[in-house]
Amino acid sequence: MPSDGRAHVFSAKRLEAFIESALGAVGLPERDAATCAARMTEADLRGVDTHGIFRLPQYIQRIRAGGINLHPKVRPVRENAVTALIDGDNGMGHVVLTYATQLAIQKASETGLAWVGTFNGNHAGAAAVYSTMAVAHDMIGMFMTVANGNHMPPWGGVELILGTNPISIAIPAGTEPPIALDMATTVASNGKVKLAAQEGETMPIGWMVDRKGQPLTDPKRASEGFLLPIGGYKGYGLNVVIGMLAGVLNGAPFGRNVIDFNKDLVTPNGSGHMVLAMRVDNFQPVQTFKSEMDRVIREMRDSERMEGVDRIWLPGEMEFHKVRERSERGVPLGSALIAQLRQIAKELQLPERLE
Amino acid sequence: MPSDGRAHVFSAKRLEAFIESALGAVGLPERDAATCAARMTEADLRGVDTHGIFRLPQYIQRIRAGGINLHPKVRPVRENAVTALIDGDNGMGHVVLTYATQLAIQKASETGLAWVGTFNGNHAGAAAVYSTMAVAHDMIGMFMTVANGNHMPPWGGVELILGTNPISIAIPAGTEPPIALDMATTVASNGKVKLAAQEGETMPIGWMVDRKGQPLTDPKRASEGFLLPIGGYKGYGLNVVIGMLAGVLNGAPFGRNVIDFNKDLVTPNGSGHMVLAMRVDNFQPVQTFKSEMDRVIREMRDSERMEGVDRIWLPGEMEFHKVRERSERGVPLGSALIAQLRQIAKELQLPERLE
Repeated sequence: MPSDGRAHVFSAKRLEAFIESALGAVGLPERDAATCAARMTEADLRGVDTHGIFRLPQYIQRIRAGGINLHPKVRPVRENAVTALIDGDNGMGHVVLTYATQLAIQKASETGLAWVGTFNGNHAGAAAVYSTMAVAHDMIGMFMTVANGNHMPPWGGVELILGTNPISIAIPAGTEPPIALDMATTVASNGKVKLAAQEGETMPIGWMVDRKGQPLTDPKRASEGFLLPIGGYKGYGLNVVIGMLAGVLNGAPFGRNVIDFNKDLVTPNGSGHMVLAMRVDNFQPVQTFKSEMDRVIREMRDSERMEGVDRIWLPGEMEFHKVRERSERGVPLGSALIAQLRQIAKELQLPERLE
Repeated sequence: MPSDGRAHVFSAKRLEAFIESALGAVGLPERDAATCAARMTEADLRGVDTHGIFRLPQYIQRIRAGGINLHPKVRPVRENAVTALIDGDNGMGHVVLTYATQLAIQKASETGLAWVGTFNGNHAGAAAVYSTMAVAHDMIGMFMTVANGNHMPPWGGVELILGTNPISIAIPAGTEPPIALDMATTVASNGKVKLAAQEGETMPIGWMVDRKGQPLTDPKRASEGFLLPIGGYKGYGLNVVIGMLAGVLNGAPFGRNVIDFNKDLVTPNGSGHMVLAMRVDNFQPVQTFKSEMDRVIREMRDSERMEGVDRIWLPGEMEFHKVRERSERGVPLGSALIAQLRQIAKELQLPERLE
């Protein structure tokens, strides 16, 4: 919701069309523009405001600077029945990851299980958008990525050589919303810090510290400090492992060789990702599994609450409700973002001006 | 190291032989006793003092109470080229998980990738002992389990229906120690709280809260509160997902139906686990991958440190050094544990008395 309290609400359809025409106007082929628009709008519908249309100005800036290959040959360079390594050929991340996820699902539908890695990719938006693609096929989906910028040091260090490296795991349920964990391994994501800066908000203590370990709460001073991992050394460890599985394993950058996509608009990101898909019926009949998932989900939600807590949420449940709500009532955008988007519309002479 | 400062140090070989003869004396077949002894001693060598010989008295108590099937038929009940569901038939967890991990490695060596789940298992010791088995085969290993007791509520709740649900991920390196993340999804383990109580120490803020969400720092009041997940709702989400992948997917308990193995010695645990193994050469030539792992590991370790920090550690590196140190100098045991073990030796008339 915009922090200024003003209601700027647009239908998802209108935003998706806007993104598609904007990306088309800067040179993306129609089909790829549509793929990016779909993945970005899905993020907005899920309430992941930092990973949807919010990123459009940045993507356009990168495309205009020549930092994206508009006509990539996205293809497997190593492949067997259960794994594939995809060269994203510096295409838009959403295009590369949509391809990779669909390939993982296809392989898993044939064999039961698949792991697909990518390199030469770019920022692909919200992790859960990909992991949840598996759920519609009665599969478990997993997604990890090396973040496109380093904002955290190793545990005990001060040099920023780690990103927020997120992980997402999606699991089908029956009549309950599917489980969809989607978390950065830092306490806050860099996107959240940016949003706070844009909205002029103060960050809670625990998101960031400065180089001496003191709390940093002004998001405009973010460059003077670093993000903290969840659970201290544990989150650091998880972060490193994700970087190795999504980066090193795929021959993609991890560590000092990560390109900060905010500072360098031209050098190819080389961004690495991994996607896993697995059929639940390897282990249980689908309906048996889903019923048991529903039982466990309800048990958690209906368990005794702490004083003052209205509801216990399962991972991905808030986003599931958000999709319903925003599909019906539209997606609210902040006024700073709206201004940016209107400027883009004007510059690119788009038919839609979001007026 | 024993908290009383006294040095009771035994060679790993001696401890392994002790465990094997003790488990044999309470009825475990020779081969299974040897398997359990090997896995438990590996935990002790790694410095995971809470998951090695420390557990022997508890295991023996459970076996004597009839809570373990001494002659289980551990076997796949569903299987294809890349997955298997293993019925542990209420056998010792180490036997079930050694079987499951070896099967995952065998399948992955043939196909590239495998995911094996287990049910009707029991406590299997240290997670990294299994995930690292894959590393010797130039594979990535992953291990998750539903903990054998509930000490945490869902996020926003107060009912203890979640365990510490750990995850371990192991990744081969070249001349550097392999990566081996092994972490509970709670900030502190239940064992650490018990140890603090025993030592009369105060717990740091962040380990536990009371039923009103207020910090709980007196470990003697642990029963009035509960453990906190790493990163708040994030660690809660990861915990739940692990419970679903290691429990629900395998038809094993998760939530209220988890048996607390400390309180109930007889009812079968039904304990669920998952193991994944994947060849790194699906993605990169083994040597290329290992060289790049070494580069990244050194980059992290050698990066600039915060004032007062002696060394930056990679996940599993401390344990790797511990194995070398303890293989050479032996495993130190606390005097309370020694007393328990001597009592067991006496009761079972073992040839070795650890005198």
